[in-house]
Amino acid sequence: MNVAVTGAAGFLGDRLINAILAEDSPLKVASLLLVDTCVPRPRKDSRVRTLALDLSSPGAVEQIVTPERHVLFHLAAVVSGHAEADFDLGLAVNFDVTRALLEAARKRANNMRLVFASTVGVFGGDLPPVIEDWTAAMPQNTYGVAKALSELLINEYSRRGFVDGLVVRLPTVSVRGGAANRAVTSFASGIVREPLRGEIAICPVDEAQRLWLCSPRAAVRNILHAGTLNGAELGAWRVINLPGITAAVKEMIQALREVAGDEVAARIQFEHDETAARIVGSFPCQFDTKRAQRLGFVADRDFAEIIRNFIEEESETKVSQTV
Amino acid sequence: MNVAVTGAAGFLGDRLINAILAEDSPLKVASLLLVDTCVPRPRKDSRVRTLALDLSSPGAVEQIVTPERHVLFHLAAVVSGHAEADFDLGLAVNFDVTRALLEAARKRANNMRLVFASTVGVFGGDLPPVIEDWTAAMPQNTYGVAKALSELLINEYSRRGFVDGLVVRLPTVSVRGGAANRAVTSFASGIVREPLRGEIAICPVDEAQRLWLCSPRAAVRNILHAGTLNGAELGAWRVINLPGITAAVKEMIQALREVAGDEVAARIQFEHDETAARIVGSFPCQFDTKRAQRLGFVADRDFAEIIRNFIEEESETKVSQTV
Repeated sequence: MNVAVTGAAGFLGDRLINAILAEDSPLKVASLLLVDTCVPRPRKDSRVRTLALDLSSPGAVEQIVTPERHVLFHLAAVVSGHAEADFDLGLAVNFDVTRALLEAARKRANNMRLVFASTVGVFGGDLPPVIEDWTAAMPQNTYGVAKALSELLINEYSRRGFVDGLVVRLPTVSVRGGAANRAVTSFASGIVREPLRGEIAICPVDEAQRLWLCSPRAAVRNILHAGTLNGAELGAWRVINLPGITAAVKEMIQALREVAGDEVAARIQFEHDETAARIVGSFPCQFDTKRAQRLGFVADRDFAEIIRNFIEEESETKVSQTV
Repeated sequence: MNVAVTGAAGFLGDRLINAILAEDSPLKVASLLLVDTCVPRPRKDSRVRTLALDLSSPGAVEQIVTPERHVLFHLAAVVSGHAEADFDLGLAVNFDVTRALLEAARKRANNMRLVFASTVGVFGGDLPPVIEDWTAAMPQNTYGVAKALSELLINEYSRRGFVDGLVVRLPTVSVRGGAANRAVTSFASGIVREPLRGEIAICPVDEAQRLWLCSPRAAVRNILHAGTLNGAELGAWRVINLPGITAAVKEMIQALREVAGDEVAARIQFEHDETAARIVGSFPCQFDTKRAQRLGFVADRDFAEIIRNFIEEESETKVSQTV
């Protein structure tokens, strides 16, 4: 199979690539194209090619969507805080690029599998207590709007047989490695990652704020699973709310305290940020994901386990960097 | 107020214009611009100006959305059957034009009220038995997709303060006057209108098929009401499922028999059409519209009353044409 990943230099993209290239990968990969605005980290694997590309530039999508392309994981996006600050950029990158990819697939490819990373941020407004697959997307942020627009088009292009699309709505991914980003949920990783590194973390929302979370490990496993799932199993709606766990900020901090001790947990400071608190507060935190689980998508056990996995992986990274 | 109507030559547009110009209109109209692809019927009213315009042509929207524009009723659309047959045209007219109008409003107007006619056709797929305002739009037709995309953008542009938008999702309007059109629900008017005119009507769906209906009178009253409603009353979601009545095709025929007799009702013939039956079958027919009713939107009493009103209005038209 000829596979491509956009957003390949991103945190999830990088991990997804590892999983795609792994021996136990469910995808039999003949070639793998890594695409991002800056050149993605190269791999010691003859199947891999890297490409630095602004997807919103003219002719860009045709470099990715070719007649030979079988699977495209489209992760590239302007994150939530950035899209809220720059409306035009948010729509251009998070929606217009999706549309261009769909049009290219329709015209050039042969029922290409498109896996699209969407978000719990499509939800907002006056919501029922538990989100189901037939709950309306009424996003209260530009990022969520662009993702919801993309979802509708992917479902429609799939219905018309132009593409074989599949949308996974990711919970807030925590704990992300690397550095903070402009996602309004960036703190959900920062309040674990920074204290564990001996640094102070700022939490912009109230400790009672509840989140819908999944680990990077579960996120990657589920995105990859979406690459191989039979599209017909999804019926008339190619959009899936992925499994996750619900935790309040104070429960996340309590889990950190249990795993890493009081001293580490004491490195979290609260500084209210109105925009972040409003947008995060508009996201739902309880889901019924029976459909996703029936389709083989997985959830984490609890947040303490997520923290333990993060510590383990960070120390492995350190060892491999030292070596 | 400076008001404009797109789709002004259409059946609902023409009636809406009458209501806007009427003495008891809730809008105090200083000027009224009528826009359609062909020149709309002129009026003997000095406030009225007509304009023939392809809204998807470059610079077109700026002729409608000016700094002086207070209210725009955007009814222009490629109807459902046509959009299903011509995907690109459906998206271009039903979505890209909406987006262009929104951008023009953002750049040129001052919190212009945009009333957008959407549709029950945004619903489809695996739906709950009763549709609520927080039920997901999972459209199974290109018309519904373009309308659902427009809804999301109108809500977002309103949230960001670029426009004062309001979306009313119309039930299937019956009984429409005039001629049949390419809407897949065109038969819902045809099976009453044609027999009353002494003509044979073709019904492409099963007699058990249930529909969510409203009269032209209720539709126009509700669209006009959307022109004056305080946007803040809508909260975070500027989209409203309008009230309607549920009736199976056989109940509609029974009502016609009661009002106009057996001979008239016998003029309906059934000829199954797969595309029409599939799309109409994907539309829901039971709604909880408490929110709309609380906001002052109205419903019809029953389908027999709708037929009686239609007969009354057709005979008035005939009289006025004779005079």
